[in-house]
Amino acid sequence: MNDCIFCKIVAGEIPAAKVFENEHVVAFLDISQVTKGHTLVIPKIHKENLYELTPEIAAHLFEIVPNIANAIKGAYEPIGLNLLNNNGEKAGQSVFHYHLHLIPRYGEGDGFGAVWKSHQSEYKPEDYQQIASEIKANL
Amino acid sequence: MNDCIFCKIVAGEIPAAKVFENEHVVAFLDISQVTKGHTLVIPKIHKENLYELTPEIAAHLFEIVPNIANAIKGAYEPIGLNLLNNNGEKAGQSVFHYHLHLIPRYGEGDGFGAVWKSHQSEYKPEDYQQIASEIKANL
Ligand SMILES: [Zn+2]
Ligand SMILES: [Zn+2]
Repeated sequence: MNDCIFCKIVAGEIPAAKVFENEHVVAFLDISQVTKGHTLVIPKIHKENLYELTPEIAAHLFEIVPNIANAIKGAYEPIGLNLLNNNGEKAGQSVFHYHLHLIPRYGEGDGFGAVWKSHQSEYKPEDYQQIASEIKANL
Repeated sequence: MNDCIFCKIVAGEIPAAKVFENEHVVAFLDISQVTKGHTLVIPKIHKENLYELTPEIAAHLFEIVPNIANAIKGAYEPIGLNLLNNNGEKAGQSVFHYHLHLIPRYGEGDGFGAVWKSHQSEYKPEDYQQIASEIKANL
C-alpha cells in the first residue's frame, strides 16, 4: 500500500524507533507515547484491521507480544500494562494498517484509561444464550 | 487454580455462554456486556497475565481471534471493534486468568471508550531512540 505510513516503516522508507523485528512482525514506539514505552506491534504484510488477519498472521503477530511486554516491564517497571487494538475509525483507529498498542501504566492520569460501563442488569440468562447463538451462527 | 472463575468455566463447573472452544482456547460472553456481543477469549491453561504467556499459548490464543471478531461483525454489524487486555489491577484487571476482551462498538456512549493523551510534544527524536534501546536491552 503505497500511502501507508506503517508499510513505509516496514520498508525502512521512514524512520521509527524499532524495538523488535523478525520475518513477520515489527515492533516500534508509538510516536504519541501515550505513556513512556508505548509500543506498537504490526504485521509486515498490509492488513487493514483484525477482520482481515488470517490465523497464520495473527499467530505470528501475537507469539512475540509476551516477550515485548516483558521487555517493557523490565525496562520501566510499570504498575500494569494495557493491550489495545482499535478497528474502525469510530473505534479510534487512525492508521489503517493493523496494529496492537502495548501501553505500560504508571498510575491515574498517566495518559491512558478506559471508559467501562457494565450492562449486566439489562440482560437475563437466556439473553446471553441468545447472543452466543447469534455469534456462533456466524462462525 | 481452584478458586479461578475462568478455570471453572473451562472445566464446565460453572456455566458461561460459550461462543467457541477448541483444544487450547475458550471464547464466551463477558457477563458485563459492556456492549452487546462483548466476548472474552482465554487460554484453557491458567496464566495470570500477558507476561506469563508462552509464545505457543499466545499464538494458539490469537489465531482464532480474527474469526471470532468476524462472527461478531456478522451477527451485529458494529461500526467498529476494540480489543482490550488489562494486565494488573491498576490497569483494570479484575479476573487474574488471562483474557482478551472483544468489544463491538455501536457509537458514542455505547459503554466503552478510551482516554488517550499524546505526550509527543514532550519527546525529542533522540528520546525515542533512547527508550527503544532501553526496551531492547530487556528483550
Ligand atoms: Zn500498510
Ligand atoms: Zn484460571
